[in-house]
Amino acid sequence: MQRFTVGDYLLARLEEIGVGHLFGVPGDYNLHFLDRVIAHPAIGWVGCANELNAAYAADGYARCRGAAALLTTFGVGELSAINGIAGSFAEYLPVIHIVGAPASGAQKRGDCVHHSLGDGDFRHFIRMADEVSAATAQLSADNARVEIDRVLATAMRERRPGYLMLAVDVAETEVAPPTMPLDAAPLSSAEARRAFAAAAARQLAQAQRVALLADFLAARWQQQAVLARLRQRRAIPSATLLMGKGVLDEQQPGYVGTYAAAGSASGVSEAIEQTDVTLLVGVRFTDTLTAGFTQNFAPEQLIDIQPFAASVAGERFAPLSMAEALEELETIFAQYGERWALAAPSQPAEAADACDSISQNAFWSAMQRFLQPDDIILADQGTAAFGAAALQLPPGAQLLVQPLWGSIGYTLPAAFGAQTAAPAQRVILIVGDGSAQLTIQELGSMLRDGQRPIIFLLNNEGYTVERAIHGATQRYNDIAQWNWTALPQAFCLHGEAQSWRVAQSVQLDEVMARLQAPVCLTLVEVMMLKEDLPPLLRKVTACLAQRNGG
Amino acid sequence: MQRFTVGDYLLARLEEIGVGHLFGVPGDYNLHFLDRVIAHPAIGWVGCANELNAAYAADGYARCRGAAALLTTFGVGELSAINGIAGSFAEYLPVIHIVGAPASGAQKRGDCVHHSLGDGDFRHFIRMADEVSAATAQLSADNARVEIDRVLATAMRERRPGYLMLAVDVAETEVAPPTMPLDAAPLSSAEARRAFAAAAARQLAQAQRVALLADFLAARWQQQAVLARLRQRRAIPSATLLMGKGVLDEQQPGYVGTYAAAGSASGVSEAIEQTDVTLLVGVRFTDTLTAGFTQNFAPEQLIDIQPFAASVAGERFAPLSMAEALEELETIFAQYGERWALAAPSQPAEAADACDSISQNAFWSAMQRFLQPDDIILADQGTAAFGAAALQLPPGAQLLVQPLWGSIGYTLPAAFGAQTAAPAQRVILIVGDGSAQLTIQELGSMLRDGQRPIIFLLNNEGYTVERAIHGATQRYNDIAQWNWTALPQAFCLHGEAQSWRVAQSVQLDEVMARLQAPVCLTLVEVMMLKEDLPPLLRKVTACLAQRNGG
Repeated sequence: MQRFTVGDYLLARLEEIGVGHLFGVPGDYNLHFLDRVIAHPAIGWVGCANELNAAYAADGYARCRGAAALLTTFGVGELSAINGIAGSFAEYLPVIHIVGAPASGAQKRGDCVHHSLGDGDFRHFIRMADEVSAATAQLSADNARVEIDRVLATAMRERRPGYLMLAVDVAETEVAPPTMPLDAAPLSSAEARRAFAAAAARQLAQAQRVALLADFLAARWQQQAVLARLRQRRAIPSATLLMGKGVLDEQQPGYVGTYAAAGSASGVSEAIEQTDVTLLVGVRFTDTLTAGFTQNFAPEQLIDIQPFAASVAGERFAPLSMAEALEELETIFAQYGERWALAAPSQPAEAADACDSISQNAFWSAMQRFLQPDDIILADQGTAAFGAAALQLPPGAQLLVQPLWGSIGYTLPAAFGAQTAAPAQRVILIVGDGSAQLTIQELGSMLRDGQRPIIFLLNNEGYTVERAIHGATQRYNDIAQWNWTALPQAFCLHGEAQSWRVAQSVQLDEVMARLQAPVCLTLVEVMMLKEDLPPLLRKVTACLAQRNGG
Repeated sequence: MQRFTVGDYLLARLEEIGVGHLFGVPGDYNLHFLDRVIAHPAIGWVGCANELNAAYAADGYARCRGAAALLTTFGVGELSAINGIAGSFAEYLPVIHIVGAPASGAQKRGDCVHHSLGDGDFRHFIRMADEVSAATAQLSADNARVEIDRVLATAMRERRPGYLMLAVDVAETEVAPPTMPLDAAPLSSAEARRAFAAAAARQLAQAQRVALLADFLAARWQQQAVLARLRQRRAIPSATLLMGKGVLDEQQPGYVGTYAAAGSASGVSEAIEQTDVTLLVGVRFTDTLTAGFTQNFAPEQLIDIQPFAASVAGERFAPLSMAEALEELETIFAQYGERWALAAPSQPAEAADACDSISQNAFWSAMQRFLQPDDIILADQGTAAFGAAALQLPPGAQLLVQPLWGSIGYTLPAAFGAQTAAPAQRVILIVGDGSAQLTIQELGSMLRDGQRPIIFLLNNEGYTVERAIHGATQRYNDIAQWNWTALPQAFCLHGEAQSWRVAQSVQLDEVMARLQAPVCLTLVEVMMLKEDLPPLLRKVTACLAQRNGG
């Protein structure tokens, strides 16, 4: 019988938390563990072109599946990935980062081995990982079972990365299989729950104008269903921030749009801010999504529900899980909901300006018409993400953006990860030319795996978002100009791909009409005006320019 | 008159240490500083496709120019670059990493701004940088002049990266220009020097068989000229390790080849190890370059000269700079050199096997014939670097390899940096298909800048070096197959590029004949046998497989 090893134990736990694929790049310190991965019946290996892309892919996968795993090699591999891990930390994604490390003996002796700094200290990189992980561990034959469980449970509980340093010999050590399920349940206190429920009921009983603002943390803690039930009980004005877009059903009555504080479209901030009580669920106010912290709430107006605590008019109740707090709100909605004002009917979207060339306005109008239920849409930081704020998502559609961490280039590999997680769904990637250059090689992995994403490459000749903030005509905002439509074919020897370049709205419409169910990977190069901006981005960049000192 | 700012001060100091170009990627936290860069008469801005590539380019530039600088933005940018910086740390390159950071006020308040982790702690990333930097500083209006000087002087003295966190407002603060030159001189003691000279003379006076083994640290401390003078005085057997290849003139009498301990070609380890005294100059024994630490010296046989200390038969003398120790050796060579045995005439290189397809042997023989004086050759970790060990470099030629840090994909952007540093020299890049995928987009920057490197893309369908270590037929060692010869054209809209695919030795020779002075960027896809290995790599991987536990 095959020996059951630490590597097998880790894979069993990964399967338990819902990981079906392991992203990464092989290296000589992780090859033996990879043998176990290849042999595993439920976890597939997904090789990526480089480690940063692999980390982004894992992050995208975690946004669709709830958890992900990444395998790199010591030093060179893990550090290449660490920006992606930091993004997963900032934006709350449990990505388990497994790092194949030199043999324990070499570490103990302090050997000058490849992929080390040559100084005999093998803990430099775990210390770096500590800054961007919920938990880290250097596994040994003795601690492996306990430490794997601790790191994975902590990562799942906090929805943040976990880091495991797995020496080649430790991976091969024989251990007993798991006997108990992993315990990742959050702390909660019945007393905090009762006190919260009483305080929230007191405040909501007297309210007439109640609004709901939900954000990405509600998506991370998978509270979409209960939010839909609350809104079904009473269609109060409801909005998300850009980062949480998709956590509310935008076709359900009461949806008023994307809230961006003073940067919001007309009527949205009034509906959310001018209330007796605003319910915040999983909200973080970040600079670019609030036009520079221009949100306007009185503390006593807020019921603020976070993953592990909630507060009512400034009074804090903890430990209390988001799920339990929302269960209490459901009871309160049933009791008092009908007293609250319904949302006003939403504003019709602005019609696109009639114009031959493709303005931001025209592009996003076309995109709105193009969307289908259950689409997974990724919009890169820059004009893409801010433009996407104005979309009204069809039922079941998801938007993946990374506005807090804001690492340009993130979405292309994340689209690869998302499509791996959800092979049956249509994946639409909207990315600027400046951003796409950072991570373009992952097109090759998409093509190798026969994926069929639709990529809208917004060609506006450089870093338009930076131009808007500072240095509109400075050459540092220019980029190398590529022959974009030739790239998909260059990244595959045997796969299939198609490309278009469109410069007029009518062409964009024609191409979109062919892409209802694409048969292969598709790249549409959309020639945009160099300095045109989506409305939200115009407001946000003006504010950032001011904060950065002009 | 234009105000003189902290940004200007930093640029003045960078110019002083020999930096003529700043590599990087713009971001909204560094745009104001970039205005100063663009306006600077002596420092050019070199935008890269992504930050890791920019760090690699800076590292390659520093290998040619002695120092380099890199500009990224907070969080996302700097962490993407940090693997490159770690490589510069491990392999001793002074790369000054400047990170544009959020305004001091936002940092002080702990604002939840983009590119932060959202927790109000703005020192996560400087702590990470601490692990891979000789010195780091968070610049303020008050400390900027002192801290810039400290970080740059330390980086230059130790030949390792320095890190500067430069908030947008600090960059714009007015300061006085530098008044004194930067002091980066190493510590040295006249007493240690005298004692070293006496001990070395005592040992060398009695010796008959003396050999020289020089390595990369001698290159970093620019001791090529004095090493050549020593060898002119007496042509003792001389070798380098792969990492230091190029620090000795390989056409000068006495050169015996690349030393790789038990992995050396026939006769090399005998010439270097079987001595009365072996002079080590700037040597580090690392696992892959010594076939797993198989070097065989008695401590009493060694005179070991390091950057800041030297030892004679185990007795240590410090502080003592490498330059001073070598000056003392020059005197000793003059006095005793003629007693020492001359190197035996070197072995003729093995003739290439006559065979249609391109074996490793045939490729490296062709490459040997192709080389010209003053070429800059970059060979990526894997078959390329280990194959390059067997080359005998023409005068003035340099080999750039990264065998200790060993980050695959490093050389493609490093070639961009090297060509930027030395625009008149021929740059030859030898890189495997697996490695090239990690960083391919920097082809676009080469093309944008009209560079004309010659790229030999060794297509052996995946990670051949990993196959040799473990998992020869496992699919994790396969990669996505690209249409390589189509890539250069896809990465430029207006530039010029040419590509060939060769599968037979005679074709390779024909193409090489056309590339004596290439007119544009050239990619030659060389179809290699999937499991063929250069001889050194065969020995090394056998040893690594054993160390990693089979």
